Amino acid sequence: MNIAVVGFGVVGKGVCRILVNEAVRLERQTGQPVSLKRILDIQDITEEPYATLASKNAEDIFADPSIDLVCETIGGCGAALTFTRQALSQGKHVVTSNKELVATHGVELLQLAYDNGVHYYYEAAVGGGIPLIKPIRECLAANKIDRLDGIINGTTNYILSEMEHAGLDFETALRQAQALGFAERNPTADVDGIDACRKIAILTNLITGEYIDPDRILTEGISGLTREDASLAEAVGCVIKLVASFRVQPDGSLAVSVAPRLIPQAHLLASVHGVYNLVLLHGDYVNEVAFYGPGAGSLPTASAIVGDILACCTTPFSAAAAERWQVADRQVRFADLKQQQVKAILNPRDQETAEFLRSETSLKSLRAGSITGSNGQSYVVAGESAFLSEAELAAYLGDRMAKKQVCALRIVD
Amino acid sequence: MNIAVVGFGVVGKGVCRILVNEAVRLERQTGQPVSLKRILDIQDITEEPYATLASKNAEDIFADPSIDLVCETIGGCGAALTFTRQALSQGKHVVTSNKELVATHGVELLQLAYDNGVHYYYEAAVGGGIPLIKPIRECLAANKIDRLDGIINGTTNYILSEMEHAGLDFETALRQAQALGFAERNPTADVDGIDACRKIAILTNLITGEYIDPDRILTEGISGLTREDASLAEAVGCVIKLVASFRVQPDGSLAVSVAPRLIPQAHLLASVHGVYNLVLLHGDYVNEVAFYGPGAGSLPTASAIVGDILACCTTPFSAAAAERWQVADRQVRFADLKQQQVKAILNPRDQETAEFLRSETSLKSLRAGSITGSNGQSYVVAGESAFLSEAELAAYLGDRMAKKQVCALRIVD
Repeated sequence: MNIAVVGFGVVGKGVCRILVNEAVRLERQTGQPVSLKRILDIQDITEEPYATLASKNAEDIFADPSIDLVCETIGGCGAALTFTRQALSQGKHVVTSNKELVATHGVELLQLAYDNGVHYYYEAAVGGGIPLIKPIRECLAANKIDRLDGIINGTTNYILSEMEHAGLDFETALRQAQALGFAERNPTADVDGIDACRKIAILTNLITGEYIDPDRILTEGISGLTREDASLAEAVGCVIKLVASFRVQPDGSLAVSVAPRLIPQAHLLASVHGVYNLVLLHGDYVNEVAFYGPGAGSLPTASAIVGDILACCTTPFSAAAAERWQVADRQVRFADLKQQQVKAILNPRDQETAEFLRSETSLKSLRAGSITGSNGQSYVVAGESAFLSEAELAAYLGDRMAKKQVCALRIVD
Repeated sequence: MNIAVVGFGVVGKGVCRILVNEAVRLERQTGQPVSLKRILDIQDITEEPYATLASKNAEDIFADPSIDLVCETIGGCGAALTFTRQALSQGKHVVTSNKELVATHGVELLQLAYDNGVHYYYEAAVGGGIPLIKPIRECLAANKIDRLDGIINGTTNYILSEMEHAGLDFETALRQAQALGFAERNPTADVDGIDACRKIAILTNLITGEYIDPDRILTEGISGLTREDASLAEAVGCVIKLVASFRVQPDGSLAVSVAPRLIPQAHLLASVHGVYNLVLLHGDYVNEVAFYGPGAGSLPTASAIVGDILACCTTPFSAAAAERWQVADRQVRFADLKQQQVKAILNPRDQETAEFLRSETSLKSLRAGSITGSNGQSYVVAGESAFLSEAELAAYLGDRMAKKQVCALRIVD
């Protein structure tokens, strides 16, 4: 198996390092040489042994019929899409860590792989180094999966962990994450939930075999959260996590969302700290299963990519087993999340908002505490819980939520 | 793929149920019929549609060349071994949940499968329904795994959970587990750690590719534990779990053990309750990864078996990818666990033993508390921690431990 790595960034470097360092072992495991033959990047590569393999000219890969597999670690939907199309069309396997590309163009690219009798594998696109895609697709294939909750963005989990444990405010925790390389200079995709949205879209596609447009997933980030929210969570025996959720509803519709949620401290999701990820799912035969590990990072992600490369070596293409995602003819089976019942704790940001909540008859009638704060008195409205639909939240609090005068912390169901 | 299920017990019934109920979906997923053709059991089978397929005569399977795959769920090393040998010799794939057979005869049976160009898969033998064997073998193939800690026996974890949460003593918790079907009438294999020993042996074989005799694994069960031990654990912020451990030591030797250990409450292993299992491992590239789910049960275990059956449908035999375990020519690379340093809390059972521990100069000098009990005064020796080797434990306390006058609770490292 001759491999070209396209993109010599954080992940690409990790892949190259493993392929070079473990060449002997990988050959023994697969019964064939697993050879890094070319590295494509627009930057100069000076470090050996990679410099010898470096090229800035894509033709060095696509005009070379001896390249069997392209490992795409560029990211985004520009050059990555072009190169992936080209490779698959030429009958080269493609292995990727690019969640944006898979979430956006997965339907086309899986079909293109199918048409050309090659693999398009994306284990590294969700959950970094965690074995997740293949176990769900193969080991759990007997099951219909009807719910999944995941912490699938390491950056936001790091920030929330620091807010929880070190008592930092959001901005300080974010700057610390940036200083440590856990957050990008432009952190929008992470803190606004966009990255988690792409990943839960991919998991939804994998589980249902139907394509879900990421834009249709209700997505909220964590940038509105304060230190006080973290304290309130602690007072009611919970922690705040950014949770990506998938549910098959009783009527068969799908509810897919990304939002900060209150998690009871004894819950498995609450024990995930720092940049680690965890995906907890329910299958009709297996019951609850969870996968935990590093959600990002050069070598962990490269570990997943190399796992996929080895699968390309040992697994012949089979039309029956090949994954494809259908674009549903009928209206996409999406639940209207605005009508969902949610259980939320309201945390007012100012005295006036607290007074408003206390005086609002409609809200008063909804108060039905099942979680009681240990220091309940200091949170007049917060610390009591209310069952509210998203619609009610919007009706009573829409403006105030937009203006960040109140935070609605939904409780995981 | 024509399938014979051998053994119509708890797990075998689950497999038959999934194969019958999901036949249409399994055929769509694999591109071929996945047909339950025969069920072998010495008991009468009266329930349809299984009765029609039932036989008490093994020749109905082994004289039938149309059977492609034998699913062995008998358990033990008697008939299960005979039938597995026969099936593999005839070029039939075998899928099993039989940890005793895999741990004891795995070397021979994997070789026999190899020689006949078929698969011998055992995902269901460790961790019940949890995807574990295939993810370790395939997704994590880039890694050298150098440590693993697992809760891999659901019965003992259920008992320990009940001792912890409901304050039951060992005998009461055991009887409750038996009443609920979580423990066998003869619970020895579970409570004495023998089942966990077989499973950690299998995981060790999988990770190293070398066969480990289960008899060489230091194995302690939980039958000596009392309610007071559970309270003591809580007082020092820990819970007691039966942990199966694998370590590659700095000198390259392997340390493999099964023993009750103290786990800090914030540790991932501490959040595993009831009959659930969790396996936490460290790979050189991926870092820490964990797999969680139901460690036993009819349908969860059957879910894993059906996953293996589907893999037999879609994965052609490949000599390079086939797993085999070597019997090491050189002395098996076992660390002498008797010389290991362990950190343990000593819990005396009677006043005389407490006095002995307090007065024993050699032990006194070893006392170096890093964990302090919240009610330390009531545990004169317990609640202080001592660094002791297994050899020291044996020298100072061997007799008293054997007579259950003192309990040494090792702390997870």
